[in-house]
Amino acid sequence: MTETTPAGPAAFTTDDYVARMRRVAADAQDAGLDGLIVTPGPDLVWLTGYQPTAITERLTALVLSADRSPTLLVPRLERPDAEAAEGAGGLTLMDWADATDPYASARVLIDADGTYAVSDSAWAMHVLGLQDALPHSRYRSMTQVLPMLRAVKDDNELARLAAAGSAADATYEEIVHVQFAGRLETDVAADLARLLRERGHEQVDFTVVGSGPNGANPHHEAGARRIERGDMVVLDFGGLMFGYGSDTSRTVSVGEPTAEAREVHEIVRLAQQAGVDSVRPGVSCQEIDRAARKVITDAGYGEQFIHRTGHGIGVTTHEPPYMVEGEEQPLVPGMCFSVEPGIYLSGRFGVRIEDIVTVTSNGPRRFNDTDRQLRIVD
Amino acid sequence: MTETTPAGPAAFTTDDYVARMRRVAADAQDAGLDGLIVTPGPDLVWLTGYQPTAITERLTALVLSADRSPTLLVPRLERPDAEAAEGAGGLTLMDWADATDPYASARVLIDADGTYAVSDSAWAMHVLGLQDALPHSRYRSMTQVLPMLRAVKDDNELARLAAAGSAADATYEEIVHVQFAGRLETDVAADLARLLRERGHEQVDFTVVGSGPNGANPHHEAGARRIERGDMVVLDFGGLMFGYGSDTSRTVSVGEPTAEAREVHEIVRLAQQAGVDSVRPGVSCQEIDRAARKVITDAGYGEQFIHRTGHGIGVTTHEPPYMVEGEEQPLVPGMCFSVEPGIYLSGRFGVRIEDIVTVTSNGPRRFNDTDRQLRIVD
Repeated sequence: MTETTPAGPAAFTTDDYVARMRRVAADAQDAGLDGLIVTPGPDLVWLTGYQPTAITERLTALVLSADRSPTLLVPRLERPDAEAAEGAGGLTLMDWADATDPYASARVLIDADGTYAVSDSAWAMHVLGLQDALPHSRYRSMTQVLPMLRAVKDDNELARLAAAGSAADATYEEIVHVQFAGRLETDVAADLARLLRERGHEQVDFTVVGSGPNGANPHHEAGARRIERGDMVVLDFGGLMFGYGSDTSRTVSVGEPTAEAREVHEIVRLAQQAGVDSVRPGVSCQEIDRAARKVITDAGYGEQFIHRTGHGIGVTTHEPPYMVEGEEQPLVPGMCFSVEPGIYLSGRFGVRIEDIVTVTSNGPRRFNDTDRQLRIVD
Repeated sequence: MTETTPAGPAAFTTDDYVARMRRVAADAQDAGLDGLIVTPGPDLVWLTGYQPTAITERLTALVLSADRSPTLLVPRLERPDAEAAEGAGGLTLMDWADATDPYASARVLIDADGTYAVSDSAWAMHVLGLQDALPHSRYRSMTQVLPMLRAVKDDNELARLAAAGSAADATYEEIVHVQFAGRLETDVAADLARLLRERGHEQVDFTVVGSGPNGANPHHEAGARRIERGDMVVLDFGGLMFGYGSDTSRTVSVGEPTAEAREVHEIVRLAQQAGVDSVRPGVSCQEIDRAARKVITDAGYGEQFIHRTGHGIGVTTHEPPYMVEGEEQPLVPGMCFSVEPGIYLSGRFGVRIEDIVTVTSNGPRRFNDTDRQLRIVD
């Protein structure tokens, strides 16, 4: 977290963290839960500002419930780090020492027959350790029972996401001027990483450069393939700025595209526009997916759009809400997520166009707004 | 994994991965388990060579059991990546699509009332998802039921760990010549990271520079403190080379140390030597801890040695076996772990000395062997 960058947004205060912990404990009670067990990762950062040096086999867990004060259990040797976190002023710290049983220590914080939401990425060994120590306790994954925990962003968070989006857009505006033909995908990926950092990102999470057939694999990162004139190239990049994520995709053509490439690109562009246009409060997440997917299906490429339309973004680049068939969660102002349909022609090329969008009472607001027409690069 | 570095060790082959999967499935059967469920991270890399671009909410799981062929369940859009893994030739790939239930897909691979070891760092949401889909199945953490899964290294793995250790040692030999006094901890940490990369590391995991009072916090990384003449500085750094870990610590004095600093350093040096000297096949892990701890306790600093003596190392820098009171696992040739006692004087300074050691039939072999006497730097 680059809380101290002079030009950045206001730092989150202890009061901010206390308010989040209180709201979340109340939400858990409303959901019929006895509390939450939050382990290192995005939930803990968001609730306390605390991020241990590494996420390890040593148990760190914040226990929140409506009727107790928040308590953070930490390994003794990490206690000084935890004490230094901004949110530490709003919670009780408890530590456990090496060669003792951390799950036994956790027992005093957890109702023996309670039901708790637990962070999605909590380590299995910790959940199984708690199940062993408290055999009548029950655990549910955060995404299942409190999926919207971090989904609605406040103004400070929106400002950070907007800043991250602008920096990613500036990166795109520059990357279209670098040489593509004749260079390796990894060379262009290194340019993307450098530009993201120069534009203010403190962390680069992914720099996808999917040229030609590699673009047809939506999770290809960047490899040793040499980019050729005539390639379509999927660019998908992002990371963290002020602790919040960016994630945008554009597909460029190295030299003149074929008529087919132009057509596929235009279908994806219209699908992405349809997805964004359908964003407004009260519409369900799956409607965004349906709106984008309909354009692609109607054009005959439904089988080649092999992933959901989008994912939430915040202190991570993949979080609820998901824009996917079956997700009935209604959109709420302040939610932020990607709209990123794609068409993948196996062995040939792929096209994806992606913006981060937030919901406002007036409809969608894009955090990415570079040109979505097919750009020709050298 | 830098499998293609020309000067590096031989790449692991499909046969290597098949042999590991087969041995582990047999080990699980011997331990009374119905199989293993392995999720992305060190276990999966070690068993298959497969490392997804990111570890996410989308379920990826390798299911191993003695009576079925290994099957890797992957998100459909990551299938091409999985197919490209070296170990993929030795397993069956199965995929699931967005908007379908991955846990329902996993059901055909798992005995409805079976007991499975699951990777320590598997996401809680996935274990809870499997528990929901198969309410009579049972899960145990890998460290609890198969702690020695990756603990005994073969010759190729030992060569990689030795290479990583040599690169870390070369880093130490250079860092003692940089300027300490007047620079920030983060400046020296950046030097460490650069040197580790220059010496062949493909990944830097930690660069601890704990100067003066910061050295008394064993998990302090490196901060904005300016190093002063007279400081003791704990250096603890490592990362991955050829996919295997390095991790070494030395404590240096910036200018002349006090008599007390010299004395504390000497106690830690003797404790570390005692720990290493006690390494031989058949000795239990806790005996290594006891041997090192006794020296420190006898010198009156027992309360200031606030962590276990060591941890295993391999494709991660923290894994079983742990050198800790209560760990009765006997040492076996090929095991590799740190021996790293320390003394932490709160608010003043800390001392830690750490080498990676492997067990041979003749006793210990160090992968780190730079001078352990107190070094004076500028």
